[in-house]
Amino acid sequence: MIKQISIGLTGALLSLSMLSAQAAPKPDEAAEYRQSVFTVVKWNFAPIGAMIKGDVPFDAAAVARHAQYVEMMSKAALEGFPKGSGPDAVKDTEAKAEIWSNWSGFEAKMSDFQKEAAKLAEVAKGGDQAAIKAQFGKTAETCKACHKEFRKD
Amino acid sequence: MIKQISIGLTGALLSLSMLSAQAAPKPDEAAEYRQSVFTVVKWNFAPIGAMIKGDVPFDAAAVARHAQYVEMMSKAALEGFPKGSGPDAVKDTEAKAEIWSNWSGFEAKMSDFQKEAAKLAEVAKGGDQAAIKAQFGKTAETCKACHKEFRKD
Repeated sequence: MIKQISIGLTGALLSLSMLSAQAAPKPDEAAEYRQSVFTVVKWNFAPIGAMIKGDVPFDAAAVARHAQYVEMMSKAALEGFPKGSGPDAVKDTEAKAEIWSNWSGFEAKMSDFQKEAAKLAEVAKGGDQAAIKAQFGKTAETCKACHKEFRKD
Repeated sequence: MIKQISIGLTGALLSLSMLSAQAAPKPDEAAEYRQSVFTVVKWNFAPIGAMIKGDVPFDAAAVARHAQYVEMMSKAALEGFPKGSGPDAVKDTEAKAEIWSNWSGFEAKMSDFQKEAAKLAEVAKGGDQAAIKAQFGKTAETCKACHKEFRKD
């Protein structure tokens, strides 16, 4: 079976060709994949937060590397939500059915995350601590906004 | 607590600074992270294999994107194996204790994976199907070699 998902974001357009060439993943596999993507996001996002809070010393090179991974992962998440991989099909998922009933809304939230994560990666290259802090906050807001609407508590 | 891991590979050197700035992850978190990294590797590696086998149509752009993710993930895996996150500390892990008792051997195997994955990403950009097939095989060999020695069946 060939999958096609309409994706509005430039950065995510690459995944269109990828999806068209890939056999449809099983719902459980898709859920495992997307959960893995967010685990890698968290792994990289958290230490930036810890540095901003002063819990660990600020390290510009580390921030740049982490931010790069957050950006890459932000572009990898959407393909983990193929149709049919919602709570009806997958037991261990916090994904709400609203993702698929309001796909364009979900895409928009994911697009916000991708844009802000890309800016964070860009700002992180510069090493300006105040700018990184501001952009970290904006990126975190996109996480919260999407979770609020589309993730179970 | 500050973590330091001696890493021999140029491509992984970046992770040194990252680790030095990050609080030590809990063993379970590290295991979840590394398993996530390999889930993302598999998600991206498998469709390249499917295209090479002819199960799905060859798509050069998709291969290039997948290979880029495999490369990125190959550079993200090692930090998921901090000391103390082996089978003594983590219940659900296939990581053998030999990883830590033979750390330099494990690093060397991971380095092989990183090198071949980087070559795969490079070759994939060119779009030459035969070259991609050959380099895919070489990369797969590094997976097998490491699993054989350091992963439980």
